This record gives sequence, C-alpha cells and structure tokens, in this order.
Amino acid sequence: MTFSPPDFTAADLAGAPDARFQSALADGVLPEGFFSTSNLPTYVRLDGKWRMPREPRMDAVIVRDPAGELWVKESRRVKKGEQVAVGFAEDGTEGIFVHSSAFLGDENEGEFKFMSSEVSREKPIDYALMANLLVDERDRAGYPVWVTGPALVHSRARNDMSWFVANGFVGALLAGNAVAVHDIEASIFGTTLGMTHTGEATQGGHGLHMRAINKVRGAGSIAKAVEQGIIKDGIMYSLVKHNVPFVLTGSIRDDGPLPDVITDMIAAQDVMKQHTTRATMAILIATALHAIATGNMLPAFVQSPDGTMRELPTICVDSSEFVVSKLKDRGTHQAFGVVTNAQDFMHILRLYVERELEGRKGGGAGGRSRAAAAR
Amino acid sequence: MTFSPPDFTAADLAGAPDARFQSALADGVLPEGFFSTSNLPTYVRLDGKWRMPREPRMDAVIVRDPAGELWVKESRRVKKGEQVAVGFAEDGTEGIFVHSSAFLGDENEGEFKFMSSEVSREKPIDYALMANLLVDERDRAGYPVWVTGPALVHSRARNDMSWFVANGFVGALLAGNAVAVHDIEASIFGTTLGMTHTGEATQGGHGLHMRAINKVRGAGSIAKAVEQGIIKDGIMYSLVKHNVPFVLTGSIRDDGPLPDVITDMIAAQDVMKQHTTRATMAILIATALHAIATGNMLPAFVQSPDGTMRELPTICVDSSEFVVSKLKDRGTHQAFGVVTNAQDFMHILRLYVERELEGRKGGGAGGRSRAAAAR
Amino acid sequence: MTFSPPDFTAADLAGAPDARFQSALADGVLPEGFFSTSNLPTYVRLDGKWRMPREPRMDAVIVRDPAGELWVKESRRVKKGEQVAVGFAEDGTEGIFVHSSAFLGDENEGEFKFMSSEVSREKPIDYALMANLLVDERDRAGYPVWVTGPALVHSRARNDMSWFVANGFVGALLAGNAVAVHDIEASIFGTTLGMTHTGEATQGGHGLHMRAINKVRGAGSIAKAVEQGIIKDGIMYSLVKHNVPFVLTGSIRDDGPLPDVITDMIAAQDVMKQHTTRATMAILIATALHAIATGNMLPAFVQSPDGTMRELPTICVDSSEFVVSKLKDRGTHQAFGVVTNAQDFMHILRLYVERELEGRKGGGAGGRSRAAAAR
Amino acid sequence: MTFSPPDFTAADLAGAPDARFQSALADGVLPEGFFSTSNLPTYVRLDGKWRMPREPRMDAVIVRDPAGELWVKESRRVKKGEQVAVGFAEDGTEGIFVHSSAFLGDENEGEFKFMSSEVSREKPIDYALMANLLVDERDRAGYPVWVTGPALVHSRARNDMSWFVANGFVGALLAGNAVAVHDIEASIFGTTLGMTHTGEATQGGHGLHMRAINKVRGAGSIAKAVEQGIIKDGIMYSLVKHNVPFVLTGSIRDDGPLPDVITDMIAAQDVMKQHTTRATMAILIATALHAIATGNMLPAFVQSPDGTMRELPTICVDSSEFVVSKLKDRGTHQAFGVVTNAQDFMHILRLYVERELEGRKGGGAGGRSRAAAAR
Repeated sequence: MTFSPPDFTAADLAGAPDARFQSALADGVLPEGFFSTSNLPTYVRLDGKWRMPREPRMDAVIVRDPAGELWVKESRRVKKGEQVAVGFAEDGTEGIFVHSSAFLGDENEGEFKFMSSEVSREKPIDYALMANLLVDERDRAGYPVWVTGPALVHSRARNDMSWFVANGFVGALLAGNAVAVHDIEASIFGTTLGMTHTGEATQGGHGLHMRAINKVRGAGSIAKAVEQGIIKDGIMYSLVKHNVPFVLTGSIRDDGPLPDVITDMIAAQDVMKQHTTRATMAILIATALHAIATGNMLPAFVQSPDGTMRELPTICVDSSEFVVSKLKDRGTHQAFGVVTNAQDFMHILRLYVERELEGRKGGGAGGRSRAAAAR
Repeated sequence: MTFSPPDFTAADLAGAPDARFQSALADGVLPEGFFSTSNLPTYVRLDGKWRMPREPRMDAVIVRDPAGELWVKESRRVKKGEQVAVGFAEDGTEGIFVHSSAFLGDENEGEFKFMSSEVSREKPIDYALMANLLVDERDRAGYPVWVTGPALVHSRARNDMSWFVANGFVGALLAGNAVAVHDIEASIFGTTLGMTHTGEATQGGHGLHMRAINKVRGAGSIAKAVEQGIIKDGIMYSLVKHNVPFVLTGSIRDDGPLPDVITDMIAAQDVMKQHTTRATMAILIATALHAIATGNMLPAFVQSPDGTMRELPTICVDSSEFVVSKLKDRGTHQAFGVVTNAQDFMHILRLYVERELEGRKGGGAGGRSRAAAAR
Repeated sequence: MTFSPPDFTAADLAGAPDARFQSALADGVLPEGFFSTSNLPTYVRLDGKWRMPREPRMDAVIVRDPAGELWVKESRRVKKGEQVAVGFAEDGTEGIFVHSSAFLGDENEGEFKFMSSEVSREKPIDYALMANLLVDERDRAGYPVWVTGPALVHSRARNDMSWFVANGFVGALLAGNAVAVHDIEASIFGTTLGMTHTGEATQGGHGLHMRAINKVRGAGSIAKAVEQGIIKDGIMYSLVKHNVPFVLTGSIRDDGPLPDVITDMIAAQDVMKQHTTRATMAILIATALHAIATGNMLPAFVQSPDGTMRELPTICVDSSEFVVSKLKDRGTHQAFGVVTNAQDFMHILRLYVERELEGRKGGGAGGRSRAAAAR
Repeated sequence: MTFSPPDFTAADLAGAPDARFQSALADGVLPEGFFSTSNLPTYVRLDGKWRMPREPRMDAVIVRDPAGELWVKESRRVKKGEQVAVGFAEDGTEGIFVHSSAFLGDENEGEFKFMSSEVSREKPIDYALMANLLVDERDRAGYPVWVTGPALVHSRARNDMSWFVANGFVGALLAGNAVAVHDIEASIFGTTLGMTHTGEATQGGHGLHMRAINKVRGAGSIAKAVEQGIIKDGIMYSLVKHNVPFVLTGSIRDDGPLPDVITDMIAAQDVMKQHTTRATMAILIATALHAIATGNMLPAFVQSPDGTMRELPTICVDSSEFVVSKLKDRGTHQAFGVVTNAQDFMHILRLYVERELEGRKGGGAGGRSRAAAAR
C-alpha cells in the first residue's frame, strides 16, 4: 500500500490552529481533555507548522518537551507539569490531524462479492510474498521483530526458528518465559511440556520443564547456560550465539521463571518498546497476549531514513481467525492474518525463503518471479 | 437499515439500453455470457422500463417467459430454448442494474476505531432486539424460517424450540435428518447420540438413534409416529401438532434415514425454495451446511405486500466466528452473526421473547423499552 | 497398534450360545431387538463357531443370508423376511462378541501427566510417519481413500493433491460438488469462489463458478470436459487422466450441480461404500460432512489378504480440534487428528513423501530414518 | 467424585522408606533430583508416618522446615540450605506417594461409545448442578474463587457478575487490568473498548478506556474512585461496596495500568496464592492466561475442616474447546469444561441460582429437584 501524504494546503488544514497543551496534574495523571493517540500517522500543528511526534504508538499521549520536541509517551511515564496535547478532534480542527486515509486502497463497498472477509482459513497464504518481504528486509538492514508463543516450540518448529535467527532474518525476539523454558527443556531433555517430539506424554515428564529452569538458575542466565554447554541447540541457543537480542517478559502463569525474565510489567514494556520503535516489520506467531502487547506499541507505519513512509508489514499467524480479529479490534488494523498451524507456517516459510535466496543468487530482480514459478 | 430506492432518472440509468436475452442451448445449459444473479435487489430493463424479476436468489439466471414475465431460475431448471438474460455489467449499462447500495449505512472507512470487526464473540448479543423482531413478525403474520443443526437437540434446547413452534414464531423448519432423529431419540429413549441429558455417554447408547429410526419406519412417517403415540414430545411432535411445515433434507452422512427425509438433493432444494421464497426472516442455528444452503436461496431483502422493501433479517448463530464469515463469504452478506452456544441462545431468546410479550400485553408500543428496562 | 485376537477358549466365550436371528418386519423395518453394529471387530457365533460378518461398518445390522453367509447391512437395504441378528449384549453372552480391546495399548489412567489430550494444535505433527505409511500403502498396492472438502482447492493445494493422484497415492477420491466446481473454476478462470490465488475477491468473480459448471454441463461430464480441453489441469484433470476413481456426492448447498454428481443420497452412499469397503487407509481433509459420512461406513480395522488384522490408519486434518472430536464422538475413535491448515498440510506431506521416496531409492529399509534425519 | 483414601497398610506402602531431603544449593536453586509436585493428593513418609504437606500445588517442591513441618513451595521461594525432598518415583518407593486414583471413577475403556470426548460444545450444560454447587458453597461458607477475562465485561455480563458479588457467591475475584478497566469504562462512559452496549464501535471511542484509567489514577485507587462517586456501578463497584477481595495482576499488554494492579509477576503470584490456598471452588471464565495461572496454583482437591477430602470443583467456561483442553494439558485435569459465550453463561447461571434459592426457600432439601423441575 503506497503512502498518500496529507494535503496541508487544503483549506481546512491550512487554516487550522496550533495544538493546545496543558500541564499534567501529577505523575501519571493527565489533564482531562488529553488527546489519545492511535497508531496512524499523526501531525501536530506547532507555530503554524505540521510536525510528527517521535516514537508513535497507540493509547498514549503527545508531550512537548522543554526544547519544543514532540514525543508520544505512555501516560504512566508522564511527569507532573509536563505539557500534554489536549483535544478530541482528529481532523485538524484542534491542531492535531490523524491521517487515517494514508494507506487506504480503493474499495467498492457495496459491491456483491464472494470471499470479502478480512481473515479466513479459506484464503490462500502467499508465502512467496512473505519470503520476498523478509529477504528485502535483510537486504536493506531492516529490523524485523518476531513475537512468538510457546506453540512454536511445542510443535517442533524450533529448527526452523533457529535457522531464521542464524541466517539474519531476526532483528529481535519478543516472547514470554514459556517459549524459552520449553525450548531449553527440548535441548536438555528432548521434550516440551513433557511430551516427546512425536506428541506422546511421558511418565514423570510433567516435571522436566522445572528441571530445565533449575539448571539455568544454577548457571545464572541463559547466556551462561549456553556457555557452560547446558543448552546445546535451539532458539535461545541461536539467539545467544548470533547476538540477536531477545526480551522475555513475565506473565502471571509463569513457572520459575528463568533468570532472564523481566517480571515487572512496566519495566518489561519499556524494554519491549526499544525494539518496537526500531521495527520495520513484525511477525506475530501463535500468541494473543504478546501479539496484542506488541500491536499496542507498534506504529502502523515505518519511516525510512530518507523520510518516505510505508505501512509496517505486520503478519499475524494463528490457528484461528479469532486472534487476528481480536488484534485488529484493538487497533492493529494493519495486521495481515494467516490462519494455520505455527509449525507448518515456519516450515513452509523457510522453504520459500530458501527458494527466494536461490532465485536472487541467480541474479538480479528475478528473485520473486522465479520463486513464484517454482511453486 | 432503511431502503434507498435507485434513482432511475439519473443519466446513466435513464439512458440504459434494454437487457438482452439469448436461448438456452440445451436443458440446463446456458448461453455463454449469461448474467449470474446475486441476492441484492436487481432491476432488468424491458421495453424501457426497469422491472424486478420474481423469486430472486443468488447463483441463478434471469429468464423471460413467453408472457414477458421475468423469473430468477436455477440453471438446472432452465429448458432448451428459454430466454436467458446475458451480460456481465451490474451497473445498468447492459440493461441490468444491481442495487448494491440499497441498504448501505454510512461508513467512515479510514477512521481509527476499536471493535470494528463484523463478527466477534466479544460483541454483546442484543437479545431484546431479536425478541422484538420475532414478536413483530408474529404480529404481522410474517414467515420466519428457522434452520437448525443437531446441536440444538444434543444440547437440550428441545424444550425451547418446541415452545417457539407452539407459540407461533416458526413459519417453517428446515433441517436435516439428524435433527429429527435425535429429537425423536430424546422423546423415546431420553438420550441424544446415546448421551444422557447431563452429557454422559451410556452403555449401548450408540444404537439408540438406530432404534428410534426403526420405530418411525415401522409407523410409516413422523406424523404417524406422533399419531400412534410413539413420539410424545419435542420439536417434531410440536411441528406435527401445530401444523407447522418442516423440510428434512438428506445428506451423505445420514443414518436411516427417516421416511420423511427427501434424499434427492435437487428435489430437496425445490421444496426448500418454496419456503425461502416466502421468508420474511431467517434464523440459522448451529449448522454450516443448511445455513449456507438457505443463504444461497434467500434474497437479501423482503418486499412487503405494499411494495416497500426492507433488508431480510438473517440471524446466524454458531459457536465460532468461522461459520458466519463463511456464510458471508458465500454472499449472504446480510447475515448478522451471534457467537454463542445454541442451547444458551435458545434459552435466553425465549426469556426475552416472554418479556417482550409481557411488555406488549401491558399496552401499546412500550413493549421493547419495557423489556429492555427489565434487563 | 498391534492386534490382540480374542481368546475364544476363555470360559465365557467358549460357553456362549449361538446368536439369534429374527425376520425383518417389512422392507427397511427391523425386528425390535436388532443388534446395532459398531466399527470394531465383531464375531458372531453360528453352529458353535465364531465368525466375522462381511463388509463391517457401524450403525448397521447383521444379516444371515440363505446360504448362511453373514453380512453387515444398512437397515434401509434389509428386505422383508431377511434374518437379522438380535441382542443387546456385546460381550458374547447372546452370541455376538465385540472385540473392543483389539487395538488397546497400555494406559496408566490415573497418572498425573501433561499433554494428555487426544487432539490438540499444540501437538507436533508427525509428517515422517504419515509419509512412511503412504509410501508403504503404495508399495503393497493398498487402497488409500482420500476425502476432501473445498478448502483444499480454495487454498491452492491443488498442485499438491494432483501430484498425489499422479504418483499413485490415491485409491479413490470421495468429495462433494464444491471440490470439483472450484477445482474446475481454477483451471478455467484462475479463481476459486471468485478469489484470486493471492486471496483477493474479484469484481464479477461471484459468478465464475456458475460459468465453470455451465461449461462442464455443455460438455456432458467432467471426463468429456477434460477430453475437449476445457479442463486443462488440477485435481479432477489428474483423476481423469490417471484413471483414479472419484465419487462426487450431492449436498443441499450445491450450485449446479456438475453432471457427475450423484444427487440421491441413498445411491451416493451405496457408491461410496464400494470404496470404503476396499479402503486400507483413510485421509480426511478439511470436511466435517464427508469425514463423518466416511467414518460411518469405515471399519476401524483392515484385514490383510493373509487374514492378519491391523487398525485402519485414519488421518483427519482440520483447522480446529472440534471436527476431529466430533468425528470420534460419532464412533470413529481410531481417527488420528492433525490440527492445521489444509494447504500447508498438503505441501509438507508431499515434501516428506518426496524425501521418503528419495530415502528408499537410496536403498532398503533406511527410508524413514533418513527422512527423519533430514528434518 | 468421592475420595478413596490410599491403603497405607498395603505391602508396598507399609514397607516404604522415609523420604529423602537435600539442601538447596543457592536461593532458588534446587538439588538436582528434586521431587516435582502435581496437584494430586500427595503423601510424604517421615519417621515412618505418611503426612500431607501444606499448601499443595503443582510445579513446586516439598520443603521440610526446621520444625519438621512439610510445605509445598515454589522453587523461587526456596532459600539456600532449605531441605528439599528428592526422588522421581510417585508410587511411594522413595517415600513419596502421589494418590493418582483418589478421585477416579469407573471407566470401561475399550467400549464402543458415542460422545466420549471430554469437552464438547455438543454436550448439554448442567446449569442446575452448577447452581446447586454455588448455593451449597454459600451455605457452608466456602470460598469460591472467580477468575475472569475481559469478555465478561465487553459482553455486558457486568450486571450478572455484580449480582453474584452482591449476593455472597464470590470469595475473591482474580483478574487482570483489562477486566477492571473496561468495567470502569462502562460505568463512566457506557462503552467497553469504545463499543456501545449493542456492539457498535463509536467515534473517538478508542480513547475512552484511557480516560477511565486517568480518572482512577487521579482518585488514587479503585476504592477511592468508588468513594468519590466516579465509579457508580458494575463489578469493581460491587466488590468494593461488599468488601469482597480482588487481585488485579498485570500483563505485558496492559494499558495504564490502574493503580491497583500488581505489576510484578512474582509479587502478583504470591498474592493470588493466598486466595487459591483457601479456595473451595473455582470458576474460570473466558480467560486462558488467568485460568492457567490459577490452575497451576490450585490443588485438585479440598480438605474440609473435619479432614474429609473432596475434588475441588473447577468450572472452566470458554467459547472454544481449546482453552479447556489446554488447561487440562497443563495438569488441571479436574477442570470441567463448559463451551459457551461468557455473557450467556452468566445470565443463565444467575437464573438457575435464583431458581435454586427460590426452591430452597420453599423448604429443606427439595431445592435442586424443584429447580430441575422448573427447567
């Protein structure tokens, strides 16, 4: 979807007033009429000029710092007296303009069509396109953020995920304690949640994830456990070995947790946001919790170094339509839904990426069409 | 949604040519460029006048009979030499106009909103509105068509469904063999699929539905089995006792089947269509197969005796979003999705209808607001 | 699961009486206490000997023909006066023994275990095992019956399914009208349900499946449409070209239907059963209706020419756990559930079968372990 | 399910050795062969006597304190040098006996049955039984713990939940930030996630939950916001007004959060456990995260003051079978699954509880049968 910049010369925008600001009443307490952000490109009028605030995300506020710089900030991080933008209008009439049609394509709304649903298991999955996007990201040194649930590990897609890490397709991994625990359980004991790689429950297996956690605790951290040869393969191993950053955020259902897990949610969000702010692509796999967490922090667009804007590709993989709908219903409208099993997704995506790489190696721009032809 | 009639005085429609017709090449074989119908209000230009064909449905063709009358007909029913409308354009330029914006409300497409999905288990269910619609239908002698899957019976909503039949809320029931089999199994043996009313599997229970079928076979028909006291209560009993028509259509997974089941699908569709053509409302519960079958035959609108048009209320109840999406994806765009358990739906709907009746009894138009207040 | 034959020398079975038979009261009307079959190995005592009736299936009865042969027969096919086995006991005490522990493994019921559910999207999918089974079937000239829903076609797994047909892995294909319609729509127009291969709805696309049907109608049959070059690729094309039998059974939601569709359900079940009776394996993909239909007709075991028995491998692929549970709840307990997207399943299964073939080519029994190593 | 106590006089248990203990190596680091607990009744042999450790839960260890008392403790709470039970055997041979058959009923495993699945939307929901359990709990001053997801609030079951709180059926409410946020949004603005009570998205509605949080922040806490008249009705209001304890635990996807939310997961688990340890019943509604969190902490049984034991009734309500299966797969085997919409569940449950109360009022033991008769 190409970006259509707003027309600031149009009468209504050209004549708009400057945005108004009011002081925060206390730490984390906003002035009544604060402007609540979305993840769409948003422009604020200051001294007669339209400017974009930095670090955009939804469900936050716009703060003007003493130097006159504009920031999008979570309300809990706003300090007493800080200048917070106020207003409800999103059309510029109060000095704030939300560019909601930035990435809108043509739609013939009333037309009678089949298969017009947004997400459906009945729609084909365009692996060639996703492979192309991923290889493009690597080529231009983008920062694809992967966000995964434990299904990825339970279901033996460990090898494929490790391959993506090892081959430079992962900017950062955001996940919970369980992903790391079961990945490490698999490395040490060959099981996940006590289940063998062919899916059978084992006797005494229910305690193996606790034993895995205990070993990492003994070592002090995941990196040290890798170093000491306790963890010998898998996703966490690859991340450590290839210096790819990961964030493990805690949850109320955690066992352990592992020493690397950030157990305070405020601290954990702050660390996650360092990665979402840099993200140029997001791949959300088999997790409602972390997908929505990431969606909340993620702008719907990415600004290239040269200032051009494009929609931030956001792929959400889940085995039911519900998670994708839920994510979109919470504002991550740009999410593109893929309804399938996480293990199978990873296996085929890797296959297509390998084909794409093969195709590009052959020379030049022909990559994608060649990969497509190979289907 | 109120109906906005097309503006036939607008230049493009006013200047449109008459529709063209070509002969069917053989029985059930159409001329190449046949016009394929949707369920939207459709107008055909004949002798300079825009007319609506009779018995509208999707996936069919428009036939002009020797008397000049226009009919929507399934292709399999078209005979060699019949005059079939041809053309691909739906905007009137070839003499056929599909009024796709007939029931469109206002939409601000690009706006950032939460909860904008079409169907979600997270949306509240407006039972008061549905109760109001049903009582209205009864008051004006409408023809609500109920289409149900066996979950309705397995899950003990038999009493509630029987109540709706007995109290005049059912124009016709369209279902498959299984609904009747398990309803009758429940009447004779107290089980459904061999499961007790508290949900436990019983020993030897797997054969009980076969014994129920055998008893009805011995009697000759469902009506005779009711007459002979073999079937003493339940949905089929109520339908027979209250002379409410039902259509049982066969399927490839049927046991038996019961003597009343129409096993040939062509014949069964013809009988079903007699009811969908009369329908003023549709309630589709816990069945993908029959819901889609009905959706295929159903116009998206209903024309009142006085010529006014309104959208045909189509309620689709299922325990996942998928069935509703699937139904919409196959063209039944007017379907309103309710994501819940069939048993619970029936129980609460009955409760609200009882409240609505109570409210109206109290006098005049206050019904709905009173029922609403009772919530 | 290996087969444990019943111990007919045990006191209770050795001393069991002969089974009793009574005459059917009318065509399709059974004597009251008829014995209702399951899909488990079942033995009937006649003249002091335990014998297995032919053509076993569930929800049917056991008939002794005038020559003394025992048959399992659907009740609708029983004629007045035929001798039908009666009795409720399944433990042999009335001369009929259902060998319910034939394929039971060891279970430690009370033990505390994780991941003990029967079907879950969280369990790994053992593609290597399935590939191995399929190649074994081909090697020993087995008869794998494939049963598929239209998701297989919508989702672009057409190539993979065609490959399995072309390479000898399909004994017969059992499906509905929609599978063939959309496969042919894809061949002629490049769309399925009017959707492109990348998943977008097209303008006017809603009529394309009707145009595809019309073309086949004009040709007279699918085979003739292939012959005349109307259908140029895809599943139906492969079936015709490789003389693999297919059965298309009608349903109440069918458009058209295609000329090859058997619209009467009784007739359709009879034709399907010719294939389920020969089946040595069953692969059920993305269809509740046809999966349950097939499960109803399928014995849970297969008898090799040398008399040895084994469980009939029954793989059920669906994107939710519900369909597999539903299938098992209707008696097809031997079904092994795979929870994934049909397109992805087909793609990876083919990949593993190719690896397995490669591995076996290399020499001898090493196939599977080599394929496994390649993971 | 009645409790069968273990037979400690049986040879194998009578001759068992005392359990062995080893020192924890560091804070939170266990000795290698630690015994990992389940939620089943577990007996430890000390000085030749079998004793039950206190505060049982799964995924934890057994610690003997200096006074000789036995405790079940999360590994993170174990301090260096504490005495931790070691061993893998659960059959008593190493001095620890897990009574896995404590609540097992009779099962005829191999029998051919329909509807033998553990959880299915096709099974009837026994509201009368649940109502009976709840009223019993209230009568005997039990401690039913309710654990809910935000669907309860989105879907307008607020009134019903408030009723249960107000009428003494709630021992404690365990939930996340979102439940409270949307409940309070509903009280202040009449929307949930910006959606009206009939399910429509509203303009500007996406910011309303942020405005609700800001108001509570201004007040200082939920209780103070109730006191100051900011929150006027709903679930949180009822909890405050009736002094029913609640625990709001944070998650990585939280907006805000509200001042009452415990953002550190370790601290949050400790507070939650104070309630699960007292629990005599658990009702888990529309939440995978919190249901699994609670399941992890909850023993599968409850010991009455008089020492008798019974299974802890654990009801898990969700709109798909998956969540219940997932919960069971993580060891909460005692969970009884109800597959329906949270709003409808609450409405009917309340109705049945009202009938049960009505029935008991009438006098004596007749309550339940009368409520059942009213169905």
